Amino acid sequence: MKLNCDLGESYGSWTMGQDDQVMPLIDMANVACGFHASDPNIMHDTVVLAAKYGVSIGAHPSYQDLQGFGRRSIPHSAAQVRALIWYQLGALEGICRAENQRLAYVKPHGALNNDMIRDPQLLEVVMEAIATYQQGLPLMIPVSLDYPAHRRLAERCGVPLIFEAFADRAYDDTGRLVSRREPGAVHQEQEQIVDQALSFAQRGGVHSITGHWLELPAESLCVHGDGDHALAAVRAIRAALTKPAP
Amino acid sequence: MKLNCDLGESYGSWTMGQDDQVMPLIDMANVACGFHASDPNIMHDTVVLAAKYGVSIGAHPSYQDLQGFGRRSIPHSAAQVRALIWYQLGALEGICRAENQRLAYVKPHGALNNDMIRDPQLLEVVMEAIATYQQGLPLMIPVSLDYPAHRRLAERCGVPLIFEAFADRAYDDTGRLVSRREPGAVHQEQEQIVDQALSFAQRGGVHSITGHWLELPAESLCVHGDGDHALAAVRAIRAALTKPAP
Amino acid sequence: MKLNCDLGESYGSWTMGQDDQVMPLIDMANVACGFHASDPNIMHDTVVLAAKYGVSIGAHPSYQDLQGFGRRSIPHSAAQVRALIWYQLGALEGICRAENQRLAYVKPHGALNNDMIRDPQLLEVVMEAIATYQQGLPLMIPVSLDYPAHRRLAERCGVPLIFEAFADRAYDDTGRLVSRREPGAVHQEQEQIVDQALSFAQRGGVHSITGHWLELPAESLCVHGDGDHALAAVRAIRAALTKPAP
Amino acid sequence: MKLNCDLGESYGSWTMGQDDQVMPLIDMANVACGFHASDPNIMHDTVVLAAKYGVSIGAHPSYQDLQGFGRRSIPHSAAQVRALIWYQLGALEGICRAENQRLAYVKPHGALNNDMIRDPQLLEVVMEAIATYQQGLPLMIPVSLDYPAHRRLAERCGVPLIFEAFADRAYDDTGRLVSRREPGAVHQEQEQIVDQALSFAQRGGVHSITGHWLELPAESLCVHGDGDHALAAVRAIRAALTKPAP
Repeated sequence: MKLNCDLGESYGSWTMGQDDQVMPLIDMANVACGFHASDPNIMHDTVVLAAKYGVSIGAHPSYQDLQGFGRRSIPHSAAQVRALIWYQLGALEGICRAENQRLAYVKPHGALNNDMIRDPQLLEVVMEAIATYQQGLPLMIPVSLDYPAHRRLAERCGVPLIFEAFADRAYDDTGRLVSRREPGAVHQEQEQIVDQALSFAQRGGVHSITGHWLELPAESLCVHGDGDHALAAVRAIRAALTKPAP
Repeated sequence: MKLNCDLGESYGSWTMGQDDQVMPLIDMANVACGFHASDPNIMHDTVVLAAKYGVSIGAHPSYQDLQGFGRRSIPHSAAQVRALIWYQLGALEGICRAENQRLAYVKPHGALNNDMIRDPQLLEVVMEAIATYQQGLPLMIPVSLDYPAHRRLAERCGVPLIFEAFADRAYDDTGRLVSRREPGAVHQEQEQIVDQALSFAQRGGVHSITGHWLELPAESLCVHGDGDHALAAVRAIRAALTKPAP
Repeated sequence: MKLNCDLGESYGSWTMGQDDQVMPLIDMANVACGFHASDPNIMHDTVVLAAKYGVSIGAHPSYQDLQGFGRRSIPHSAAQVRALIWYQLGALEGICRAENQRLAYVKPHGALNNDMIRDPQLLEVVMEAIATYQQGLPLMIPVSLDYPAHRRLAERCGVPLIFEAFADRAYDDTGRLVSRREPGAVHQEQEQIVDQALSFAQRGGVHSITGHWLELPAESLCVHGDGDHALAAVRAIRAALTKPAP
Repeated sequence: MKLNCDLGESYGSWTMGQDDQVMPLIDMANVACGFHASDPNIMHDTVVLAAKYGVSIGAHPSYQDLQGFGRRSIPHSAAQVRALIWYQLGALEGICRAENQRLAYVKPHGALNNDMIRDPQLLEVVMEAIATYQQGLPLMIPVSLDYPAHRRLAERCGVPLIFEAFADRAYDDTGRLVSRREPGAVHQEQEQIVDQALSFAQRGGVHSITGHWLELPAESLCVHGDGDHALAAVRAIRAALTKPAP
């Protein structure tokens, strides 16, 4: 079970996240590509930091929306989505090449990620764009009960999938994240977060917020690197995952 | 003698240049990379158009300055220049990959180009950045009487050079372009433009505005694709260059 | 019957529209405020040009979206819409003050305009924002069969309304513009455009695309300033409106 | 002696400064206008916060440069500087109007401030632009030994001046700030900072870094609101200034 984290989300003179502290704790860095956050210099610093700790570098492309941090669903044609993916993957890879690194996977950011999960046609556009960019480059998407359908689509497009799950978010009975606006959506207790991480890692699923078992085969857990509370949770997950099962 | 032209300089809903008309007439397209002009969609359209006519694709990276069209000299550190070059080269190459094309060369745009010609340290930074991005990728720079020094620096950096010249601009006695603010800086007569193109192509140099001969070994002529007058000049240059010398 | 036109829609080095030619023909200039088009310099040039011809200056605020020219519906909270209206109205008025001009009205642009017409709550937010900015400042909105409801809402908010109509667009039976994707949506013949302008001016309405009469009390016609065809239509409308009715 | 502070310098999802904590301690808030930092929402929040504590609102206009935080000297024509000042003053005033506040003064930001101090012609352009925007609106500039010349220019332009000084920065013998790159440029000890504040407040000047007395009649001290150290210094200055002189 790998840990992935959104990184390189500073911009110009503004800082976001504690990349220096979280990078040593994770396996996969989702690096912003300048459309929702980051700029060429911050991307370079992030790639250098990932290389230092042997962390895989994933592109984290987004709608172009610094103001809204890529969280706003902005209408795009299929051609526009393809072009923004090629542009951002290439831009990050250009910086990776300077450090003898390579793109290991792609994880769309924010509204682009939400939109493609809601809209199978858009998901197919994203998959095709990635396959066109580079055969065999994997796409990371949230695991849900739709995972068999996602697998079939991905196979058809020739794109390996990496399913990710969240240790700190409650799941509803349909296997989706409970909205942050609902009570109980975000786990506050570190013990609960670690338990959920172990559940994904050792039992291949999680109990929904109403207590039903959900089979959700995740290969990576998304963790957060902003704030002491978040970093403590990452350390606890990392320690629990590393400990040999009894 | 190749003809090169700045292309893909539209942005969003704004159009600049007559790319459809000039592309069939040229050999090398300097494609804007989104920092002074263009966006991922326009870059894609431009790459498709270049591929259609078998035109070489060059990256045309710039300071990030849509407002000033990359023509304003904005202070940058060496690290910032390197990162913006890697980012833009990668971004354009990402789009090229989708169309089975490749980057053939790099020509810095506007103020970045002027600044590197004025500042040998910056020129070296640009050369190193290109060599780091890809061994053997050529840099296009304006030919001047400094060309032997430019060649030596380029050899040390491991960057092939492509010298470009202008058929429609007067040169001063030091081998630099006469400022547009001076009288006679821009040739208006098509005959004079064609003569200067032939002079570069057949005699390896040009007479300065005061009548002195300048040896300037150009391998490419920069032409313009905006307006009927410009297009007519390109056609005339193309015709004159193609005609067998008597 | 006043003629209004979207103006000042150039940006940096990119030109859009033929403002110099259309300004003498119109009564009201909807001036872009830098969020979908324009920049402080272009706004200043546009205000100077409007003042020269005694044309009323209206603010044309938009979602912040240069890339999409303000035509993409981007999610905004009510607080965000209010703040962007205050910002853009103030910005244009700051430039007007330098030329002893004043804001005469507000016409939201593109997707913001469409969204407020679709969503009465958003329309109320826009009206309140304008009334808070300046008591008595009018809002220009498309006339539709909802005009009595729009009038009641505007009275409650204390905002005078200016209803605008289009001479070159077909209306459907509900009093809305036929989508540009439908056949017959845009009138191509100048005679038809002039007839529709006269119908709005002299009979207070128009026949729908299916031939039903629509009572639509417009006080202003929106005309276009890009291209010879558009300018010829404006001249023809202006001439027809000026001619004394027989 | 008034305390002023740069505020409202967050942007979108990025936070900068501790505006909530510093606002109660100061008299004058220099509010970013969206060109180097801030956006309409953040400007509105900042104006609301200033109004709550009765703090004067000053416009803090800048070159348009989010990437460089307005700290890069970007070439501008006089007409461009005028237009960007009018735009930003108006934009902030538009937001002030919604909260029944008004612009109390103007303090140019970063590189624009540095450039106008270096270049008397640019300083005159800035003064004229402010006077054109609103008669009697004061300009805040750094006090230096040039203050008599600055006063004469300001009187000619009809712009009241507010001279500001720094309590935490060393001055050289010409009355300018010692560059941050030099040793001793920034006072680290709170006692030294408070002493310098009292020197400006009670003795109308300060000793230079070499021990010479400089008569520098400052009316406002610029303080910083980012970090616990900075906030403690502001509190100490405030306490010292409030205490009746013995």
